Amino acid sequence: MLKSLNVGELTPKEEIHARINKLKAKMEEQGIALAIILQNVDLFYFTGTLQKGVLAVSVDKGPVFFVEKSLQRAAAETPLEITPIKRDKDIKDILSGLGMLKGRCGMELDVLPVLVFERWKGILGYDNIVDVWPLIRDLRLIKSPFEIRQIKRSGEIVTQVFKRAKEVIREGMREVDIAALLESEGRVHGHQGFLRMRGLNQEMMNVYIAHGLSGTVVSGADVPISGAGVTHAIPQGPSENRVQRGIPLLVDYGGGYNGYITDETRAFTIGELKDIYLKGHEVAREIIEETMDFAKEGIVGTEVFTKAFLRTKREGLDEYFMGYGEGKVSFIGHGLGLEINELPVITPRHEIVLQEGMVFAFEPKFIIPGEGSVGIEVDFIVRKDGLERVTDSPINIVYL
Amino acid sequence: MLKSLNVGELTPKEEIHARINKLKAKMEEQGIALAIILQNVDLFYFTGTLQKGVLAVSVDKGPVFFVEKSLQRAAAETPLEITPIKRDKDIKDILSGLGMLKGRCGMELDVLPVLVFERWKGILGYDNIVDVWPLIRDLRLIKSPFEIRQIKRSGEIVTQVFKRAKEVIREGMREVDIAALLESEGRVHGHQGFLRMRGLNQEMMNVYIAHGLSGTVVSGADVPISGAGVTHAIPQGPSENRVQRGIPLLVDYGGGYNGYITDETRAFTIGELKDIYLKGHEVAREIIEETMDFAKEGIVGTEVFTKAFLRTKREGLDEYFMGYGEGKVSFIGHGLGLEINELPVITPRHEIVLQEGMVFAFEPKFIIPGEGSVGIEVDFIVRKDGLERVTDSPINIVYL
Repeated sequence: MLKSLNVGELTPKEEIHARINKLKAKMEEQGIALAIILQNVDLFYFTGTLQKGVLAVSVDKGPVFFVEKSLQRAAAETPLEITPIKRDKDIKDILSGLGMLKGRCGMELDVLPVLVFERWKGILGYDNIVDVWPLIRDLRLIKSPFEIRQIKRSGEIVTQVFKRAKEVIREGMREVDIAALLESEGRVHGHQGFLRMRGLNQEMMNVYIAHGLSGTVVSGADVPISGAGVTHAIPQGPSENRVQRGIPLLVDYGGGYNGYITDETRAFTIGELKDIYLKGHEVAREIIEETMDFAKEGIVGTEVFTKAFLRTKREGLDEYFMGYGEGKVSFIGHGLGLEINELPVITPRHEIVLQEGMVFAFEPKFIIPGEGSVGIEVDFIVRKDGLERVTDSPINIVYL
Repeated sequence: MLKSLNVGELTPKEEIHARINKLKAKMEEQGIALAIILQNVDLFYFTGTLQKGVLAVSVDKGPVFFVEKSLQRAAAETPLEITPIKRDKDIKDILSGLGMLKGRCGMELDVLPVLVFERWKGILGYDNIVDVWPLIRDLRLIKSPFEIRQIKRSGEIVTQVFKRAKEVIREGMREVDIAALLESEGRVHGHQGFLRMRGLNQEMMNVYIAHGLSGTVVSGADVPISGAGVTHAIPQGPSENRVQRGIPLLVDYGGGYNGYITDETRAFTIGELKDIYLKGHEVAREIIEETMDFAKEGIVGTEVFTKAFLRTKREGLDEYFMGYGEGKVSFIGHGLGLEINELPVITPRHEIVLQEGMVFAFEPKFIIPGEGSVGIEVDFIVRKDGLERVTDSPINIVYL
């Protein structure tokens, strides 16, 4: 039945097994005998399905993939053998029977709520459970060719949305009206529906529009530009602000395909822009080009940040770089994958060495208080000999 | 600056203070001296702003509202005095200085990740912290006139979207194409952007389209109908399935205004429907009417469920009621508010007594395996003398 409904390219069997084997190797290194995985995205990564279930991996046994529901859908999607359960309490006896309940146990302590965690300690009979997320995070950091393919397909949606933006943005339109049209365009072209961001209170939209003052509103989130939103209950995203001539309008769009996220920003304008905007855009463009000139496998993330920052300083734009005042954020890039806040983070502090297969969004942006914002965001795949762009969408200012 | 951007009706000052005072009273009853509130929705409920911050409430002191950022936006939105902080570690000294770090402490243990919780135990110097969520949940259960106003405005968006659905649905369209247009329609008419669902792995969309087989796919989530989605990475929502004559198409749409969620479903069709669908819709309609005839303040939720269930049994439809086989769920209604999974839940087990100001979605639905699904969802406000519909949108099958 699902096949007739066409629900995306499945993760290859070999890749699922390779991921689990890599996790086992990391667990052995860290002295973790058993990992119990509950979060939906991690479950999807290791099983290829996002149904209600639990994955148990031990260094020398398993995996055992318990599925509560839908058994039918999980079976159609995962290459793993399924152990059906009626409730999560049934798991202890099975794991115990398999001799898997011994040694140090790890769970995803970065996302697991306290009450869920306490319940699972009871179910499994463990007093202490350590954090297994750093191991999973480091695995998810390096994307396979299969994953890069999904990311590029996700990028095609982004490219399509920017093309459409050129057709629809008109003077006097509200930011929300533009967002509504672009949201629709992405969906029709295969967007998965929403994007995922890991952690407590992390929320996001698919489309952000920042134009003039709305692009200068300081966000409660750790982002340089979030827009004002239409309500203080969701203080982000497009607002009712209307498009004016001579002020850049940034479209920040998140593609999503088969789970994989892309995230790029382009600047559009009706009429000529003031010098500060033109200069900001030009410096952002040059930072992207300079970064592509030197960054590759082996380069450290802090160097990427520092070179960009020094460039903005030489240009006298450092005050506006990645926000101003209380709104300034300390990164210029963030990892992409099944979630939008993956590693690597490109900051002055994160000493991560770039490696083939890492994917990150790179977003030199300038926020000019009382005026507006300008900048560009592109997505990069790290290769041995350089950075590869995810999309081929041009990064110039689009004059409408 | 924000004022010029128009970002929604603020929560009245008196209401914010009343909510905090009610929390204090409940804390006193439960022997909780101090509550530390971190989750964004609860913060919004008690402060009127959703910026990055922490609210400390003690039974005899406070509240102290710590804000990290944006100070400017928080100050424009909350009636509470703001205590600016650079980082959450600064909080201990301030609370200690105010004599608030004594007695039993409570936090939102249902959503707080283990690592965040451990960090906060360290910051506050507490070994044991109890769960304060049940107190907050019970407060949020009863909606004020201000909240009902937001919910009705949210319902107006739903009404508008159903009107638009009548205009756009055509034979041969894909479910995603319909969803894209309706998503856009809602946004243009004031939808806040996304809806919130509390808890680990809880995810949702604004628009669900279920038509024929896609309406029979068993969901991993605790919902009767979720659709197939366009990818196994997000196994819910509209699919690429195309509209055919003679099969009901359900539009399940979530309104969102100023934080407040509504959630209704209507059936559309091109051409005549088989008897099973007509009967299913008719029984759903009668269940809604019968429920409106007797339910009001003082009636128990289990009675509402049981009456509906017995009706489906008399009609020989109980096998299909709220799903079939592994997909059957055990509720016919769920509470609405700032999150879509609030209390009351209308199930055979939850012995909640209905009370003026409760708001819930009520969704008699039938899923016929191998065929399709049919049903209706409406939102009710509990009043002393009956149930009030949130919207006035008609519930008949719409023939296109």
